[in-house]
Amino acid sequence: MTEEIKIPQKHPRTESLRIRERLIKNFKSGVVASAGLIAHGRGEAFDYILGEKTTQPALKAIEAAAAILLTAEHPVISVNGNAAALASKDIVELSKITKAKIEVNLFYRSSEREIAIKRVLEEVGATKVLGVGEAASARISEVGSERRRVDSKGILIADVVLVPLEDGDRTEALVRMGKKVIAIDLNPLSRTAQFATITIVDNIVRAIPIFIEIIDKLKTKDKKKLEHIASTFDNKRTLGEVIDLIHRRLSELAEKGVYLPILEVEEL
Amino acid sequence: MTEEIKIPQKHPRTESLRIRERLIKNFKSGVVASAGLIAHGRGEAFDYILGEKTTQPALKAIEAAAAILLTAEHPVISVNGNAAALASKDIVELSKITKAKIEVNLFYRSSEREIAIKRVLEEVGATKVLGVGEAASARISEVGSERRRVDSKGILIADVVLVPLEDGDRTEALVRMGKKVIAIDLNPLSRTAQFATITIVDNIVRAIPIFIEIIDKLKTKDKKKLEHIASTFDNKRTLGEVIDLIHRRLSELAEKGVYLPILEVEEL
Repeated sequence: MTEEIKIPQKHPRTESLRIRERLIKNFKSGVVASAGLIAHGRGEAFDYILGEKTTQPALKAIEAAAAILLTAEHPVISVNGNAAALASKDIVELSKITKAKIEVNLFYRSSEREIAIKRVLEEVGATKVLGVGEAASARISEVGSERRRVDSKGILIADVVLVPLEDGDRTEALVRMGKKVIAIDLNPLSRTAQFATITIVDNIVRAIPIFIEIIDKLKTKDKKKLEHIASTFDNKRTLGEVIDLIHRRLSELAEKGVYLPILEVEEL
Repeated sequence: MTEEIKIPQKHPRTESLRIRERLIKNFKSGVVASAGLIAHGRGEAFDYILGEKTTQPALKAIEAAAAILLTAEHPVISVNGNAAALASKDIVELSKITKAKIEVNLFYRSSEREIAIKRVLEEVGATKVLGVGEAASARISEVGSERRRVDSKGILIADVVLVPLEDGDRTEALVRMGKKVIAIDLNPLSRTAQFATITIVDNIVRAIPIFIEIIDKLKTKDKKKLEHIASTFDNKRTLGEVIDLIHRRLSELAEKGVYLPILEVEEL
């Protein structure tokens, strides 16, 4: 199935600075936290190492994720500041075609940020945004302080949660609650990557449009076919393939003595 | 010689969040630019992959750097926002024991930031800080716009420049001007790392204290011995060793299926 999927041919590297600018703009408007800028930098480093393209293991993970999202009863897409800044439009589109709810879910909660994120999502067509203000009064266990707050109509009752850019503690807590967690995380070694049911090691800016494309292809398939795709996916093995790709890429670069022109500490 | 050097035994991982907090605090006070937060994240990712410790290749590079700094006629330490935020005290100490001048050198120049950085350095004992205001009116060629500004009493006439966290263009320009450039950069694949005369692939927070320790050991050696240390150092080979270390570490992790607990997208 994955062979049919075409990766968009544009070079994401040329977009990297534009993405960074978008993040900084959203930082200034209160959508992104200062720690979110640092986290973005970590993601950039991994993305550069991966070659700033969607890999075959990522495509496999997206396909499996699409299958479980299409067979979910209560799917929810969890959105934080960075996700809203970088992929609000795609997130809203994905929620519409999968009937997934959208929930604001922050590590550093503040009503200002919740509202700013809600506004960004509404501006691109979201009609209902959970997890804002009093709505986020349910608690998930085993997670400290404010990070445990979720919406009783959203993540609390969800069977499948898509978490672009989530922290490890919450991912682990959600999995322990019996939920299927789809993570989008550029770092294949993170706790989130390791705990999630399905880990898409890719930049959300590239991954979600492909996700939408695959959903579109799979939505006419019967449930049995979808369940087969989901059940034959092996997350640990797929993560191993990504680490192996990084490994091979570094090998090649080291042998050639070639540097990555993008990885410098520019703009300090 | 490097065998004699003991790496401090404390675990830097426990310090990583404190370092991040220090950076954010300095961002709020105008010392660090928003792009500096993103750059810090990129550094964090590489540091995690390296195991957050000073490696043997880094120690070799520090030793060679100490040798050329001790034999320099006009050594200058270039300081930007991130360097001032994370290592001001050590930078001032290093400048004192090597008689190197300190120059503020920014990618995004603003008099507010120049003054904020100068103040941070003076608070920890710097008596003279170059590159602030009108002093930074000399230009280095081949570098665009404001980034080319340097102090005519500092970098312009320097024979050795230590650049913790520098961008590739400027590193290249300084090398072309015939200067020996010592870079401290966590990314062994960056253009800075590749262009510099000596590249220390390490976190400045760990590297500069070791640098001071090594200077202390080498300062009594004669010039011939120091020149021997410098001339036998091979930067490309040492960078290759670092890439090889990363490579082996990823291999081990991929085989064990073990995650790095630190690499998650926490605090978004």
